[in-house]
Amino acid sequence: MKADIITIGDEILIGQIIDTNSAWIASRLGEIGVSIRRKYSIGDRREEIIEAVCESLAKCEVTIITGGLGPTKDDITKRVLAEIFDSEMVCDKATYERVERMMKARGIAFNDLNKSQALVPECCTVLPNHKGTAPGMWFEKDGHIVVSLPGVPFEMEGLIIEEVLPRIQNHFALSAVVHKTAITYGLAESMMAERIADWEEALPPHLHLAYLPSPSQLRLRLSAYDMDKEQAQKEIDEAFDKLLPQLGDLFVGWGDTTVQSAVAELLLAKGATLSAAESCTGGALSAKFTAMSGASEYFWGGIVSYDNSVKENLLGVSREDLEQYGAVSEQVARQMAEGVRRACGTTYGVATTGIAGPTGGTPDKPVGTVWMAVATPTHTVAKVMVHGKIRAINIERAATAAINMLRLELRIEN
Amino acid sequence: MKADIITIGDEILIGQIIDTNSAWIASRLGEIGVSIRRKYSIGDRREEIIEAVCESLAKCEVTIITGGLGPTKDDITKRVLAEIFDSEMVCDKATYERVERMMKARGIAFNDLNKSQALVPECCTVLPNHKGTAPGMWFEKDGHIVVSLPGVPFEMEGLIIEEVLPRIQNHFALSAVVHKTAITYGLAESMMAERIADWEEALPPHLHLAYLPSPSQLRLRLSAYDMDKEQAQKEIDEAFDKLLPQLGDLFVGWGDTTVQSAVAELLLAKGATLSAAESCTGGALSAKFTAMSGASEYFWGGIVSYDNSVKENLLGVSREDLEQYGAVSEQVARQMAEGVRRACGTTYGVATTGIAGPTGGTPDKPVGTVWMAVATPTHTVAKVMVHGKIRAINIERAATAAINMLRLELRIEN
Repeated sequence: MKADIITIGDEILIGQIIDTNSAWIASRLGEIGVSIRRKYSIGDRREEIIEAVCESLAKCEVTIITGGLGPTKDDITKRVLAEIFDSEMVCDKATYERVERMMKARGIAFNDLNKSQALVPECCTVLPNHKGTAPGMWFEKDGHIVVSLPGVPFEMEGLIIEEVLPRIQNHFALSAVVHKTAITYGLAESMMAERIADWEEALPPHLHLAYLPSPSQLRLRLSAYDMDKEQAQKEIDEAFDKLLPQLGDLFVGWGDTTVQSAVAELLLAKGATLSAAESCTGGALSAKFTAMSGASEYFWGGIVSYDNSVKENLLGVSREDLEQYGAVSEQVARQMAEGVRRACGTTYGVATTGIAGPTGGTPDKPVGTVWMAVATPTHTVAKVMVHGKIRAINIERAATAAINMLRLELRIEN
Repeated sequence: MKADIITIGDEILIGQIIDTNSAWIASRLGEIGVSIRRKYSIGDRREEIIEAVCESLAKCEVTIITGGLGPTKDDITKRVLAEIFDSEMVCDKATYERVERMMKARGIAFNDLNKSQALVPECCTVLPNHKGTAPGMWFEKDGHIVVSLPGVPFEMEGLIIEEVLPRIQNHFALSAVVHKTAITYGLAESMMAERIADWEEALPPHLHLAYLPSPSQLRLRLSAYDMDKEQAQKEIDEAFDKLLPQLGDLFVGWGDTTVQSAVAELLLAKGATLSAAESCTGGALSAKFTAMSGASEYFWGGIVSYDNSVKENLLGVSREDLEQYGAVSEQVARQMAEGVRRACGTTYGVATTGIAGPTGGTPDKPVGTVWMAVATPTHTVAKVMVHGKIRAINIERAATAAINMLRLELRIEN
């Protein structure tokens, strides 16, 4: 089973916006056992659309098209698809009424542009879009499937999950695919592969392992295709049961877990609270917690102590130690973590102080050097890491490493 | 002049990583007057590569290929290109010596994998990569250009800027293209288009205006193609001179300016300092400043006051006001801005307090409601905005809106 993904729209083609849709769609199709042959990105032009869709029809079973359906642009994609499938444009009553209701609810005039959203090629099956005005369209031709979806990510995502994936599974009678993903933190892909080589070697041939690295974690995904679903789940669970002892503290959680969501869960379970003192991460560590809904239950706040005067006055870091050891030192990191814990009145305090770069390094403390500390009710731990030369990456890595340090402390205490 | 961009690599195809390279390349090519016909994303497979490269050769003048050149994968892309151009693989001495030096400097063994990086098709011109081991390759065939570049973004970017763009301009004798971009903040694209319609109408036909929107700003770019460079620059400057009075405070700066970099410049010019008190933005506002190298000269720090106790104890917000007006109120925003300015001893203080969502809204204060305040040496201003329902976007918009409020205060004072 092969699929192509075609994104239509000049904004993506000329680089005004970055295409995140096609990666998301590719991942979802992969999960039901459909592999991607090719992605295309083309402009809003008839010839380009015909060429790409016809190429794709000739080469694979499924073609997913996104974009080109906005009210000011819809003529082109919909009319070209009508042309390809030799069909008339007709008004879809259900879409007409849905768009009319949406416009009324928002107090917007139901004008011709909006009415045109209900025009679709007669031969297609309309896929209702509950989050926007442009409907999805499902075409079948000689066993091939072509799906046209709006380019707005959350509209497209709703249609893929609710309509497209179940229809593809049903149409091609795809057997269930079972996945389970373990999130790990602390080892790079190549070192992880070395560590778990024996386990990987011993996996039954029908279980497939994928290493999915990202800047802040490494995901290990086991998948089973063409198997009885319960049997597959059982075998995958058993395989992971054997792996977990080898992973130890590297294992963060399952599925969508992140290092910060694992910490949130551990804090909530203890009824504990957290505050952060940030120098080199400059707010990015706090922002990782506050990006999660519900953070106010355990994350009370923090102090961004960029200037040494803030480290002294708000965190109580000793001026002598700042002078003697420098702001990037074990002594200062420890006092920052203890200071923010005290100032905010929380159970735990976490701190970072380092040289984010690209300037400011010394032979002793090169760019990328970061001291981190965690203060708990009973003790304080500190650790140094040296990251790279690029400021944005150093900030991201330092924030995640400090949060992971806290995760390890919370696990020990449990 | 048309170009295709081909990204090679399973990671992008199956959606493990999002392709940011092709948008970046498309923008750079657009700036020298080369438009993009199509982008492809394909896997590391011989047939797919041959098919895509040959299609592209038949359809446009330039083909840019990224990816598939890592030491463990390089065989495939390089060998397939050698096959397409009917050329032998040879060792490029300069690359061999460069990679050997790089490995020595890093203390890594110069093994066969690394040595293979110096193998290239004999017919290509090698483009030296100063930031990594895989060289770029430039092929010419019947007037067409095919360029193969590594997929690592900063290696690719270096090669495009230093080698590829000048060579394309030279090869096709492209006339200089002149661009100038004005950064604006505060009006959406459609409203801006309405406001400046007369000015746009009056532009000479050889000056092209593009609206380039992003979540936190709207860029207006004027371009001139096929013109004498000095004349073009003069006409573009004159056109913008007429526009600026109409933009007023909406104008943030030129080129790569952001709202926060404009604020940084204004603060540095006055020798002034800044601190931030963040509730709903939870560190994201501070992180926007600390992401910029040199921020420590004017950004002294801040307090993330997520919990009301932190607002009271560290910022001195009155408990009575918190109870009477709620944390999301003008009174609290003002006291936060004044409190952080006092606590950190800075010239200015900026504050945000709002409901990031998706839960926590009330009929009076729906999700997305954000109070912002700026405290200066002489007075404090506050303002409310209501954003949308999506947490991440609300945080981003609230942080940028508060920074822009500070920008307007700093401009008034200047």
